[in-house]
Amino acid sequence: MNFFIVHAHAEPQSFNGALTYQAREVLEAVGHEVIVSDLYAMQFDPVSDRRNFTSQKDPDYFKQQVEESHATEVDGFALDIKAELEKLEWCDVLIFQFPLWWFGLPAILKGWVDRVFVMGRIYGGGKWYDNGVFQGKKAMLSLTTGGPRTMYSEIGLNGDIHSILFPINHGILRFVGFDVLPPFIVWGASRIGDERRQAYLKEYQQRLLTIPQTPAIAYPSLADFDENFQLKPSALESD
Amino acid sequence: MNFFIVHAHAEPQSFNGALTYQAREVLEAVGHEVIVSDLYAMQFDPVSDRRNFTSQKDPDYFKQQVEESHATEVDGFALDIKAELEKLEWCDVLIFQFPLWWFGLPAILKGWVDRVFVMGRIYGGGKWYDNGVFQGKKAMLSLTTGGPRTMYSEIGLNGDIHSILFPINHGILRFVGFDVLPPFIVWGASRIGDERRQAYLKEYQQRLLTIPQTPAIAYPSLADFDENFQLKPSALESD
Repeated sequence: MNFFIVHAHAEPQSFNGALTYQAREVLEAVGHEVIVSDLYAMQFDPVSDRRNFTSQKDPDYFKQQVEESHATEVDGFALDIKAELEKLEWCDVLIFQFPLWWFGLPAILKGWVDRVFVMGRIYGGGKWYDNGVFQGKKAMLSLTTGGPRTMYSEIGLNGDIHSILFPINHGILRFVGFDVLPPFIVWGASRIGDERRQAYLKEYQQRLLTIPQTPAIAYPSLADFDENFQLKPSALESD
Repeated sequence: MNFFIVHAHAEPQSFNGALTYQAREVLEAVGHEVIVSDLYAMQFDPVSDRRNFTSQKDPDYFKQQVEESHATEVDGFALDIKAELEKLEWCDVLIFQFPLWWFGLPAILKGWVDRVFVMGRIYGGGKWYDNGVFQGKKAMLSLTTGGPRTMYSEIGLNGDIHSILFPINHGILRFVGFDVLPPFIVWGASRIGDERRQAYLKEYQQRLLTIPQTPAIAYPSLADFDENFQLKPSALESD
């Protein structure tokens, strides 16, 4: 299988760095292909505007989705976007590796999504959720937190981690069709000792090698919604 | 009162632009002071790393929070960060004006948070949530969506908008102590006609002028949590 890891950490010696380094080794050792976009090392530019395009549909008013649809037709994406689109379309498994910053993606990774997940080629015209471009492919978040697990429980101070990650798991990854696997989370990465970190590395190795057998997070299907995009009463009944 | 609007849209003629333009006019007309950080116009750089600092605590390993705490002590923030910190500390009301991109902040605005909300000066050492630096001050999201309101209901295809905004409202604004007001949301901004847009502008005007009387979103208090940051059973009882 083809693995694409989008890696967002400024410090190569960080634990995020160790997780991605190991992921490449472990996956390649069993015959998978791995591409890593190390966003800081690439000096990836996360700001979205006309710089995303070599083409131009409307010179007087910039609407990103209009320009994206146009660029899809005329092959008008800037070189940095084109390179990432090709990796994205090549992969069977997409992994985001990042430290949770302000309960979301670091800007360099959020901007990678803003710029690369383009209308036309990646979504739009009925291609979304279980009808999305990446249906049948898998995606997974791998992240580190500052605080301990208890802070992110359903009754924790910071709120439930699955709610916090919903806009990313559902709103980004599921939106474009991926089957989204449960996140791999290292809790309080900078507060734990080397022994615990080694155990996390082993656990991650296991997670990576069992991706094909790992059940995806269950989300309702497009067919469960009515013409106003409301869940049908029948879908609310448990079965 | 002092209003600080952090504005994130690449197109000055956009409806986001109209909302911020009007906000300044309306607020100044009744005697408030208004500062706008127009992130695209400023070419704000949202990438966080050593560029945030003129000081350096550890040259061998970059850990952002360590560098932030150090920079707080030695006044070691880069000029662009220093300028934003001063506006942030000056304001009584903070407003984020943005289009909802991939169910979150556009990267240029997420990076503004990543870089400006620094450990030491803005949070840390027990300064968080209702004990935060900005306690008693107010913050509000003002945003536009691509899809209609129905898509963002509790049973809507995209998920409940309040859950989607929780990581921003609670995890960013409340985390540093702001009283967070309900968001102002323009639904399907590019699909509605001029008449509806005019009505939205009027509604926003009203929202801005009634900010002092608007009740904040109710979040539990730090005192409601035990030493493991779990909500105490007593706080779960309704009263």
